[in-house]
Parts: sequence; structure tokens; C-alpha cells
Amino acid sequence: MGEFDLIDRIRATLSNRGGRVLRGPGDDAAVIRADGLIVASTDAFVEGVHFRLATTSLEDLGHKCLAASLSDLAAMGAEPGEALITLGLPPNIGEREVLELVGGAEQVAAETGVAICGGDIDASDELFVAVTVIGHAETESELVGRDGAKPGDLVGVTGRLGGAGAGLILLERKQHGVPVDVGEALIDRQRRPQPRLDAGRALAGAGVTAMIDVSDGLASDARRLAEESGVLIEIELARLPLDDGVEEVACIAGRQAIELAATAGEDYELLVTASPGNRDRIEQAALAAGVPVSWIGEVRPGAGVSLLGESGGGLELEGWDHFARRTANRHR
Amino acid sequence: MGEFDLIDRIRATLSNRGGRVLRGPGDDAAVIRADGLIVASTDAFVEGVHFRLATTSLEDLGHKCLAASLSDLAAMGAEPGEALITLGLPPNIGEREVLELVGGAEQVAAETGVAICGGDIDASDELFVAVTVIGHAETESELVGRDGAKPGDLVGVTGRLGGAGAGLILLERKQHGVPVDVGEALIDRQRRPQPRLDAGRALAGAGVTAMIDVSDGLASDARRLAEESGVLIEIELARLPLDDGVEEVACIAGRQAIELAATAGEDYELLVTASPGNRDRIEQAALAAGVPVSWIGEVRPGAGVSLLGESGGGLELEGWDHFARRTANRHR
Repeated sequence: MGEFDLIDRIRATLSNRGGRVLRGPGDDAAVIRADGLIVASTDAFVEGVHFRLATTSLEDLGHKCLAASLSDLAAMGAEPGEALITLGLPPNIGEREVLELVGGAEQVAAETGVAICGGDIDASDELFVAVTVIGHAETESELVGRDGAKPGDLVGVTGRLGGAGAGLILLERKQHGVPVDVGEALIDRQRRPQPRLDAGRALAGAGVTAMIDVSDGLASDARRLAEESGVLIEIELARLPLDDGVEEVACIAGRQAIELAATAGEDYELLVTASPGNRDRIEQAALAAGVPVSWIGEVRPGAGVSLLGESGGGLELEGWDHFARRTANRHR
Repeated sequence: MGEFDLIDRIRATLSNRGGRVLRGPGDDAAVIRADGLIVASTDAFVEGVHFRLATTSLEDLGHKCLAASLSDLAAMGAEPGEALITLGLPPNIGEREVLELVGGAEQVAAETGVAICGGDIDASDELFVAVTVIGHAETESELVGRDGAKPGDLVGVTGRLGGAGAGLILLERKQHGVPVDVGEALIDRQRRPQPRLDAGRALAGAGVTAMIDVSDGLASDARRLAEESGVLIEIELARLPLDDGVEEVACIAGRQAIELAATAGEDYELLVTASPGNRDRIEQAALAAGVPVSWIGEVRPGAGVSLLGESGGGLELEGWDHFARRTANRHR
């Protein structure tokens, strides 16, 4: 089957949504109505680096690639709009597999009101998925960057952490002592993350000063926010909100729960900073969008990230950072 | 060196352009001002499929990937705006090579007024480059799709054809009898294509009814335009405008010049349809944008593409199509 037949079959499975796409797949480019500003982000997912086909279905892969990409729009407070998906396909991935993958992405698109409106298909030795997402806003004041954190701000995070990391440990083990439903929830968190799109817009509207999504791990992502804002971010590890079952899985794997929560990444929660006077408003806005915010630290003058242990003593960032880098290729 | 250090070094080499990028690299997503409509397209380029590192420099590769992607905006008649570039990097591609590749793309960006405003870097077994380009327009009437060709329209093409295919043949041969300057021009055409952005906007403004860029080969691209418009496109092969030296290279390679012009692709010229009454206006608009238009055929009721030989007899599309498919992986 040629590339173009396959593209026709993919087109047949996609729905237009959101009312902005005037021309979708089938032309040289998609034509999209914009409200004044667009927000664009691109991410690639490579077999053996970001996922292993041995532990993920093609449908889950499609879900995860689009969900993880949309998480970047959530972190800006943008309204999600459109996605373009490029596939590098090795010979062992046939039409059925491609349609499964696109079907998983289309499910996320349907849940989030996104239109998949273009893409490209190429031969490749290894499977890769490159996703570009486009979000919308009318004015800059609706959006939040990484650069607005100020000394004195509180540091907060949505939802709970460590679940995706614990889920990955379970995926790679045949046997474990975690209750079935708890284990399945963790694995689901790893395989089918949910971008915090409503919470992102609510938090932006409630006046957070900076925001980033937790994709590479809280410690790494906090460091990037600190760099862009020119501040020091101090996080109290004991305050990190842990997902159910993370303690048990960490114990089984001979790791610390707090280590998974701080460095494993892929939870796709939102890390924010906010002035203390805005605390209640932000908590309420997030709750109204379906997710609690936990306050886990403070912004100080300086640079980098301090991870404070339960004793109150500082942990060496170098160590955490090294751990984060060492585990960045954890799907390989 | 970590991914983030490399991203910082890449950021330092990029210039903001066009006045639309309010937030560029360094945040979760780029923020871009839009005038009413955006036009978005994505393409991937994979080592061993679209290029071979043995015959291309990293700088030329960066040039070609961005230029080929921008060609899709040219084919819509859009104003070029921004680009996001994702790199899949094998271990043998280090910092120097990445900066060369980005440097080649940044040169094209500077020539075309485009801002490279985001991207992603990932480990990968093979080198791949995925590019998303964003163009702008105020209203739909400024843009042209593939779907507007009508029976009775003339079929035209900008510039000259076969050069990129001939250049590829020369790249793969150590010795050939073509004069040095002619050979170098052909190789340049293969390695450093120029997107017809000005011509695309001029042709859209002059009222072409449909437009597509010649990336996969005139025969294949004409077929896609015919499909989207629901018409038959008849092309007289003897009228195809050949690049200098294509005859000589075809002869050396035991091929026909017309075969290279009709099927080799990568010339990134624009194929258009237009009502006969609009012929002079379109010729003048293209010339004012720096490129001639040749009239090479006609739109008729029906479906598909007819390639008419010099005798006037029809050539089997199946044969051409098969050739195009067989050569689609010609860089492998």
C-alpha cells in the first residue's frame, strides 16, 4: 500500500473539531482560524528512548504522544486547538498498527476538542512520532510563561506525583505485590497520561506567575523554571503529593517514593508559582477545574533548585540532577 | 553535554524575525501573533530515506529540510512566518554537527524572513529532522488549495524541472562528462532548493485556481491535485521546461531527460491551474516574482493524470506511477 492510500485511510478516521480548521489533511498545509495569538509546541517520541513496543500498545502510544504534547499547551494556559502528527514507520508497522496509533491520538483529540489536521508519513528504521500542537489565545495576558516567578512566591503542583514512574516500574516487571486495581491505575498513569488543559487555563486565569508541566521530572522542570525566571526554587520533598501505591512500588523496587515523585517525570502535572496573597484564589480555580493544588515550596533570590529533605537539611541538587539525567532514557 | 546545554547553544544562534514571535525557544511553547488565519504544515526527513550523510553536509541538510518545508507554504500562497525544528540525534552527531545543521536552516530562515521559534531534541538510532512551518494570511481569499482546478483550465509550472533529479545522479557518481559549472548548478539544486515563496503569493494573488509544489515528482503531484479537484490533468511531456544539463546527465545515466523532469521530484517548483483568460496576468505576476511560468497542459473532465508523449499518444500512467514509487526511496 502506498503512502497516499494510507493517508486517505487515516483521513477517514479523523474528525474536524473546534470550528477553526478551514482546510485539513489533503492540501499542502492546513488552514486554521486564529484569534490573535497562537501557541505552538513540538515534541518527538522515539522507540527505545521514549517507549518500548514490548510494553505499550500502538493505541496507548498514540494517546500518550498527543497527550504529552498537549501538556505543553496546558502549561501556557492556552486553549487547545489543532495537532499535526508525523510518523516515521519501520517495515514491521503496517496499516493496522498505524490506524491503531492514530486511533489512540484521535481519542485524546476527541476528549480535548482538538482537530488532527495534518501530518506526514515517512519510512524509517525505527518508529518515531513527532507531534506539533497549536493552541489559541486572544491576548498575551491569558498566557503564562516560565519566566515570571518572583522571590516570595509560593511553589505549587497540581494533582499527585510519582505515579507514572511507579507505573513504568510495574510495566517492566512480571510480578509485584501491589493490589491489582492500584497497579492498574499506576500503569494507566504511565501509558495514558491526561493533559491538565482545563487546570492550566484556570491557573493562568487565577494569576499564577509562572507555570511549566512536569514531563522530565519535578526537579528538572523546576530547574528550568528557575533558570528562565532567574530565581532559586526551594522544594520540601516531604510535601510532595504522592500517588496511591507509589510508596509500595518504590519499596518493591528498592527505591524511595520521594525519588520517584521528584525525578521520574511523565506525570504531566503543572508546577506553578504564585504570590502568597493569591493562594486561595488559585486553589479554588484548580479545584473548579477538577484537580487540587499542593503547596510544596517557595521561590527565593538566587539560582537553581534546592530539594529539602525531611530533616530540613539540603540535598545536593547535583545528585538529583545526575539521577534525572541517568534515568532520562529509562525506556531504552 | 546535556540536552539543555545544547538547546541553549542553539538558541544563541537563532534570530527572531517577522515581529510575530512574542515568546520563542525557552518556554513550554512559542507564542505567535496571528493575523486571522495561519497555515501549518509538517514534514520529516530521515537518514537513508530522504538523504545520505555521505553525499550531504549537515549545513546543506538543514537548508534543505527547512526549504522543502517552506515550499508547502509557497504552494498555499501564504506569507512565511515561523518554524519549529525537531531533531532525532544518533550518538555520532555531536554538538558541532547539530550547530551546522541548525546554521543551514537559519540561513534559509534569514533569506525568507522566517523565525525558528521552537523545537525538540531527542536521542535516536538514526538521524531525523521534523520541521513544522507556520504561514500567515488575513483571509481565505489570499490562499489557494489543491481543489480548485476546473475543466478548461490551463496547467502551468514555474521555473525548470529535472535539475534536482539530475543533481542526485551526479552526487552519486564520482565521474561524469558534464561541464563543471553546469554540474555544480544541478547539485546545488538538489542540495539547496529554494522555496518559491514570492512566486506562490504572486500566483495566488493573480488568481490561479489550484496550486501544489513539485516535491515528489510532477506526475505524482499532478495526480494529487487532480484527485483533490476531481478532474483529469493532461500534461504534454515535450513542453516540460528542462533545467540546463538535464539532457546530458540523463544521457550519461541511460535515462530520458523527460523522465527526470516528470518523476524525479525535489525541484520545489509550483504546479498551477488557471483559466485561459487569466494567462497573461499569471505570467506577469510570476515574472515580477522572479520566475517564468511554462504552460504544459490542460485540465479535462475525468480523473487522474495523462502524460502525453511527443507522438501525441498517451503514456500509461501506471508505468510512470510505478517509476515514481520505485524511485521514491532513491536516497536509500
